[in-house]
Amino acid sequence: MEFLRELLSLSGVSGDESLVSGWLQKQILQRKGSWKVCPEIYSGENFHDAILLKFGTPRTAVFAHMDTIGFMVRYNNQLIPIGGPEFVEGAVLVGKDRLGDIRCRLIGSEDAMIYDFPRAIERGTRLTFEQDIRISPSFIQAAYLDNRLGVYNALQLCETLEHGWVVFTTYEEHGGGSVPFLLKFLQETAPVKQALISDITWITEGIRHHEGVVISLRDKFIPRRKFLDRILALAEQSKIPHQLEVEAYGGSDGREVQFSPYAIDWCFIGAAEDQVHSPDEKVSLGDLDSMISMYQYLMKEL
Amino acid sequence: MEFLRELLSLSGVSGDESLVSGWLQKQILQRKGSWKVCPEIYSGENFHDAILLKFGTPRTAVFAHMDTIGFMVRYNNQLIPIGGPEFVEGAVLVGKDRLGDIRCRLIGSEDAMIYDFPRAIERGTRLTFEQDIRISPSFIQAAYLDNRLGVYNALQLCETLEHGWVVFTTYEEHGGGSVPFLLKFLQETAPVKQALISDITWITEGIRHHEGVVISLRDKFIPRRKFLDRILALAEQSKIPHQLEVEAYGGSDGREVQFSPYAIDWCFIGAAEDQVHSPDEKVSLGDLDSMISMYQYLMKEL
Amino acid sequence: MEFLRELLSLSGVSGDESLVSGWLQKQILQRKGSWKVCPEIYSGENFHDAILLKFGTPRTAVFAHMDTIGFMVRYNNQLIPIGGPEFVEGAVLVGKDRLGDIRCRLIGSEDAMIYDFPRAIERGTRLTFEQDIRISPSFIQAAYLDNRLGVYNALQLCETLEHGWVVFTTYEEHGGGSVPFLLKFLQETAPVKQALISDITWITEGIRHHEGVVISLRDKFIPRRKFLDRILALAEQSKIPHQLEVEAYGGSDGREVQFSPYAIDWCFIGAAEDQVHSPDEKVSLGDLDSMISMYQYLMKEL
Repeated sequence: MEFLRELLSLSGVSGDESLVSGWLQKQILQRKGSWKVCPEIYSGENFHDAILLKFGTPRTAVFAHMDTIGFMVRYNNQLIPIGGPEFVEGAVLVGKDRLGDIRCRLIGSEDAMIYDFPRAIERGTRLTFEQDIRISPSFIQAAYLDNRLGVYNALQLCETLEHGWVVFTTYEEHGGGSVPFLLKFLQETAPVKQALISDITWITEGIRHHEGVVISLRDKFIPRRKFLDRILALAEQSKIPHQLEVEAYGGSDGREVQFSPYAIDWCFIGAAEDQVHSPDEKVSLGDLDSMISMYQYLMKEL
Repeated sequence: MEFLRELLSLSGVSGDESLVSGWLQKQILQRKGSWKVCPEIYSGENFHDAILLKFGTPRTAVFAHMDTIGFMVRYNNQLIPIGGPEFVEGAVLVGKDRLGDIRCRLIGSEDAMIYDFPRAIERGTRLTFEQDIRISPSFIQAAYLDNRLGVYNALQLCETLEHGWVVFTTYEEHGGGSVPFLLKFLQETAPVKQALISDITWITEGIRHHEGVVISLRDKFIPRRKFLDRILALAEQSKIPHQLEVEAYGGSDGREVQFSPYAIDWCFIGAAEDQVHSPDEKVSLGDLDSMISMYQYLMKEL
Repeated sequence: MEFLRELLSLSGVSGDESLVSGWLQKQILQRKGSWKVCPEIYSGENFHDAILLKFGTPRTAVFAHMDTIGFMVRYNNQLIPIGGPEFVEGAVLVGKDRLGDIRCRLIGSEDAMIYDFPRAIERGTRLTFEQDIRISPSFIQAAYLDNRLGVYNALQLCETLEHGWVVFTTYEEHGGGSVPFLLKFLQETAPVKQALISDITWITEGIRHHEGVVISLRDKFIPRRKFLDRILALAEQSKIPHQLEVEAYGGSDGREVQFSPYAIDWCFIGAAEDQVHSPDEKVSLGDLDSMISMYQYLMKEL
């Protein structure tokens, strides 16, 4: 959990993932010696801030986005959202510009967000929710569980993974844009026909805490039925707690797999949170365990 | 027409096209012996549920989408649209889950569609309008004329086609996503610079039944004028009845050709229907004949 | 300035760029002899109406779109926008159909634009704002400064450019669609990792006339921070007047670079105008000078 605490404390809004990417690369280098299979690592400026790990002979790729939602400073104390952060009146935002560290409050309204700080903040400065990690016996609560838990899950998977790609992507919260070049590299290096999206979804009237990892049958986009049917059969066979989601809205890195020039099936699988995109995202620790178990199972069986 | 009746009776909402795809593959295998040119056939899991036919040395590709609009079951009797089905209060929907066959009614409202059935239907179950084919001397009326008539037109074209690609695509009604990988394969196998979209459009204040096949000068997207001018000159020369459409909305597989990494001109050409995306889509048989004739003419002359 | 006047007088709405493209090709052929480096020129039907110029060994590509907003004639005197033209009641529109030249007025309302002309205009006819170029000591005012000034800037850059791509694109105002195939060609011919978008932006509460060229830190999309930081450091070092923009809306050819299958950083840099997309777009001549100087500087230093 110490690892997860550190990961949650790093800022990395879409477009500014270099800090979290650098930290993650260091972790991978330190840990890979203890993994069952030592992966090939692809990172650096040719991949912008993304990281790809190739284990054995991949059949399936796992995508976990490293970026988070946040805010960018405009003019006259205005803030523009990066991704879709919840407007939480009075929430503490932190960041840094050339004049120094910033700790201010989010005020205004959902359509006209402004910051409250004694001095003007430089244009283009990125602000994030101040982190406050709360762990109880059954829940973890913090900002940015979406998608630091998806990254955490992908890292846990690395420990025992024999064959597969694990890809840490950028920009997911703000429309995407790294998956296209990552997929091109991946398909030209060791192509796959299957993708799992390691990300966090929503508690809704049909999805509840403690009922297992969520397998999403659709969000705004729709995976191919043939692939879903295989996943569902395996999930049942696994006996790992899981629940099925059907949504009309929302998207993920799966969207970019769907629209890519490669015939790759995809499915979003992840724990659900409530208080989405707020400083108080909340996930059941049991659901997180199910997520980790399900990825280990599926990456073997698919 | 027996062939068309069968085609109309097969369900195949976006993402679940394997039934119609399998049936179509069988038809192609049975019929290709009688075609003027025997095409190379590309299908199977590498192409998901799509099918490509290569005749001779292609200059132009025809795209016809196999999928239809429909509904997916959510929670608490809710339905989520796949594509944009019309809300028709009381319309009969059919489908199947692990508990058996389903025949229920669509109720609720446009923004909150629900089903009326004595038991809960499994999450993720796909439902379609019950088919009711009505043929009169001048009209055909049924669900899913969009785009089963476009598929029918493409199959008719195959009988005499000497040079060209005929591509049966998936996912068109729900945002697309198969054309990118199909185009990549097509351009790497036998590249073209021209594409025709064999699909069904709308009766509007400017487009009327019995006035010929529609050549669309734009929908939400705009084909290149140079290509439109060539099409229009050929259409005039052909003496085949046709009418010109100018719309601000709507899209087709043409959208994905436009945004592809290939310099391919495209144009949507197809008969018009009213009661779009309802169980009662209605197309003039004369317009369908014009569509078939126009494709045969253009695929020779372009 | 004579060159700019001619360029401003040519119509070229999205999808119909052949006139402006042909004229530009002629200019390039006439001028390239006097340029510091003679570029390789790629144009013709394989590139639709786009043009690419390769100077030396490129590290960075400059994109300038040739197309403009405008209108297309529908039915019953209706007009449909191409791109997002401002509704200016009574504005003079010009064009041509098979019956002859057209000069009419824009009437109706923003949501239902119609034309006022004694006869019906043929479906699909493209209309543009009548051009009226006004140059004062400190301003230029005309229709279509967006993006004829971006094209002008790119042409000025050609005079001294040693290494780089200069790409004249199409369709930018109406959703794009040429950048994907241009980027593919460019990356397969002489790849780059950096792109500058030579386009015109907006006067807002944070961006003012005469305060220098605008470097956009974001519009609807967000460039990568690492690249922005390099640009900002160079801009400061250059001493060329510039101002920083932060917007939530708007897009450019940068969008298509972001979502391409190549890891290319991008940044929008251009002068700002007010009365955007109207016949009266207005740009500071000083800001245009800063734009030209900044491109020359950055293309050397990046």
